[in-house]
Amino acid sequence: MTPPDNLTTIAARHGKAARLAAGQQVRVINTHGKQVVDTWAFNAADIREFMSMEHSRATMLTVFPKVGDTFLSNRRQPMLTITEDTTPGIHDTLIAACDSHRYKQLGVTGYHESCTENLALALGELGLAPPETPSPLNLSMTIPVTASGALSFEPPVSEPGQSITLRAEMDLVIVFSACPQDVLPVNGLNPTEAHFSIL
Amino acid sequence: MTPPDNLTTIAARHGKAARLAAGQQVRVINTHGKQVVDTWAFNAADIREFMSMEHSRATMLTVFPKVGDTFLSNRRQPMLTITEDTTPGIHDTLIAACDSHRYKQLGVTGYHESCTENLALALGELGLAPPETPSPLNLSMTIPVTASGALSFEPPVSEPGQSITLRAEMDLVIVFSACPQDVLPVNGLNPTEAHFSIL
Repeated sequence: MTPPDNLTTIAARHGKAARLAAGQQVRVINTHGKQVVDTWAFNAADIREFMSMEHSRATMLTVFPKVGDTFLSNRRQPMLTITEDTTPGIHDTLIAACDSHRYKQLGVTGYHESCTENLALALGELGLAPPETPSPLNLSMTIPVTASGALSFEPPVSEPGQSITLRAEMDLVIVFSACPQDVLPVNGLNPTEAHFSIL
Repeated sequence: MTPPDNLTTIAARHGKAARLAAGQQVRVINTHGKQVVDTWAFNAADIREFMSMEHSRATMLTVFPKVGDTFLSNRRQPMLTITEDTTPGIHDTLIAACDSHRYKQLGVTGYHESCTENLALALGELGLAPPETPSPLNLSMTIPVTASGALSFEPPVSEPGQSITLRAEMDLVIVFSACPQDVLPVNGLNPTEAHFSIL
C-alpha cells in the first residue's frame, strides 16, 4: 500500500492523538487487518466532556455501532458519527481499555504497554491529561454477544487495508491506541501498527 | 410485607448511600416489583476507585451478571459478588445513569430528578462527592440484547418483594438510586420506593 501524504502512523503497541475540527473526518485504516484500535474523543474546549459508550448505547440502541450511528458524550452531545465502514462492521463498545492491572491479572510479570497508558501518553504529547479513562470504542475488536448475554474474546474479522471513517460533530481531540494485547487473541496474538488520515 | 428492623428505604425517585465493611452483605428488595435501582460502589479508602461495568464485563464474560459473579473496580479489584438473586436475574450493565441531559433529550422541560443527581446527593449525605458518574449496575432494569446486538428499553420482569443480595469484597460505600425515569417504561412508568437491608 502506498500511503497518502497525510497518513499518520499509530505505532504498534502505542497511541497517537490528533485534533479534529467539527465536520472533519478521520479514516482509521487497519493496515495489517487484525489490529484493534482503542478510540477516545474529548471536547477540545473542555476535556471533562468525552465520548461515552454507556451514554451512546442508550440512543444508538445497539452494542455494535454501524454507519449512520452517532456517539454521544457524557453530556449527551453528538461527538462522532460513522460515515463509512469497509470492515465487516464488528467493533466493540463493551470492554474496558487494557491497563497494568489487567496484564497482572493475566499473569504478565513486569512492564507491559497498555491502552490506558497509551491514552495518557498520547494526550500528553498535546499538553493534555485525561480526566479518567473512558470506556473506549474498540475498532475491529471482536467480542460476540449471545442472546443470553455471554461474551468472548475473538480475533478481528477485518482484513488488511479495511477502514472505518468517523466525522467529528464538535471540535475535538481524538486518541487512538494500537492495542498491545498479546495474551488474549484480540489482535490475533500479533500487535501491529495501524494508520489514520484526516479528510 | 412487614419490614425487618434494619430495613432502609430508598425513597421513590431518590438515592441513598451506606457503608459496608468487607464481608457484609446488602439485600436490595424490589418492594413493588417494577422499580429499577441504579447501584454504585466506591472504595471506602479512596473514592477514585469504584465498581466499573466495563472492567467487570471483561472477566464476568457476560452482560447479564448472575449469582457467583464478582464486579471489579476500575483497578480490577473485587468489589461486590452476587450471593443470592430471587428475581428472574435480569439486570442491566449497559446503560448510563439518567441525567438532566437525558430528560431534555426525551422532551422534558424544567426540572426532573435523575440517578446522576441522586448519586451526588446520596454521597453528599456522607460528606463525599463522586469523582465522576460511573456506569451503574442497574438492578431489575430490562434491556434485552439480540444476537445482532440490538437493545430495547422494557419494563422490569421482577415481582414485588423479590431481591438480590450482594457481598462487599472490600470496605466500600454503596449507593442506590430508585430510578425516576417516567418517560421510558423501564420502571413500568411508575417510579416507586425500594428498600435494602445490611446483613
